[in-house]
Amino acid sequence: MELVNQQDLDVLLGFLPCATPQAWIDEALKQEEIMLLNHCYLEQCAARSALNLMLRCPDKSDVLIKMSKLAREELRHFEKVYQLLTKRGYKYRMMKPSRYAGLLNTEVRKLEPGNLVDTLIVGAYIEARSCERFASLAPHVDDELSAFFSSLLKSEARHFRDYLTLAQNNCKEPIDERVAFFGEIERKAIELPDEVFRFHSGIPKL
Amino acid sequence: MELVNQQDLDVLLGFLPCATPQAWIDEALKQEEIMLLNHCYLEQCAARSALNLMLRCPDKSDVLIKMSKLAREELRHFEKVYQLLTKRGYKYRMMKPSRYAGLLNTEVRKLEPGNLVDTLIVGAYIEARSCERFASLAPHVDDELSAFFSSLLKSEARHFRDYLTLAQNNCKEPIDERVAFFGEIERKAIELPDEVFRFHSGIPKL
Repeated sequence: MELVNQQDLDVLLGFLPCATPQAWIDEALKQEEIMLLNHCYLEQCAARSALNLMLRCPDKSDVLIKMSKLAREELRHFEKVYQLLTKRGYKYRMMKPSRYAGLLNTEVRKLEPGNLVDTLIVGAYIEARSCERFASLAPHVDDELSAFFSSLLKSEARHFRDYLTLAQNNCKEPIDERVAFFGEIERKAIELPDEVFRFHSGIPKL
Repeated sequence: MELVNQQDLDVLLGFLPCATPQAWIDEALKQEEIMLLNHCYLEQCAARSALNLMLRCPDKSDVLIKMSKLAREELRHFEKVYQLLTKRGYKYRMMKPSRYAGLLNTEVRKLEPGNLVDTLIVGAYIEARSCERFASLAPHVDDELSAFFSSLLKSEARHFRDYLTLAQNNCKEPIDERVAFFGEIERKAIELPDEVFRFHSGIPKL
């Protein structure tokens, strides 16, 4: 079975500013518990972000419908990862989040219409990076985890495209410059040394 | 087709302090647009409440799993009611909420473990009342709406039981007194004159 569709991955890597560094992959393979616990939390955060967008955009039917479906899928992923980590004897708990989302969100413009467009672009980066990390990990983990990560890839890749389409549909000008701007922040979050290991963290600091 | 399972309805009416007054039903039949718009918003609120409970209870697997499934169902209902109201030519918009949830939430104890138990009991009342209102309306509306409301009844009745079970499972003492306490507030919210017509409003003030 092909774990990752190369075409999907090429689209992601064309959007993301860099691939996941090997040093992060090596660390993730040693930190399975932290990785799964953090993944479990992030699925809930993704659902909450989608729901927040729905509640602030009652007049945008594209946002309402796409975000409702996205939130349902994230919750289904939450249930699956929760079941999987419980089966492996890990106890779910909250942990200090990584710097990743914070670094991106700090740069979101405060006023509309910039705020919504930037929030959607940040959503696209988070989904794209998650997807690329699942693809990076899938060949190195055990069969059960590999099958699970591969099963998530398809929907996460769709989520990334949904966010990007919504960002463009809700902006009168081309969004390329904002996408490139957030891409540079994303690159730093991924490539600079990071003291905390999480699903979206940077290069592990030794 | 039997629109409402009488046994389900008896359980609900055994829990709720009163049936929906006829005056509210009469008003609802005149205010289809407001009713559907408000219903659409309430489904999103129900999903958000469930997600908030998940994020505050990482150590309670019963809350996590039941609330994740409940949130997914509420979002699916949101999609259905949004589709239905759009088909009828109504434009979804936010409206000032009714007093209902506010009256109940004001009485929720601020400190744990009371806060969680009360929040879950309030959740049970909101779900039970929604269910009872769908049942009250189903025989009086057109076929499409009637079939839709009837389809919601089964899951809403399960949600009410889920909330109540979670409340009891997360409290060392019997919860009967708190249930009765919130029941009296709920009765007032439903039976006292209300200036604003909404899905959970009281007797319409003429």
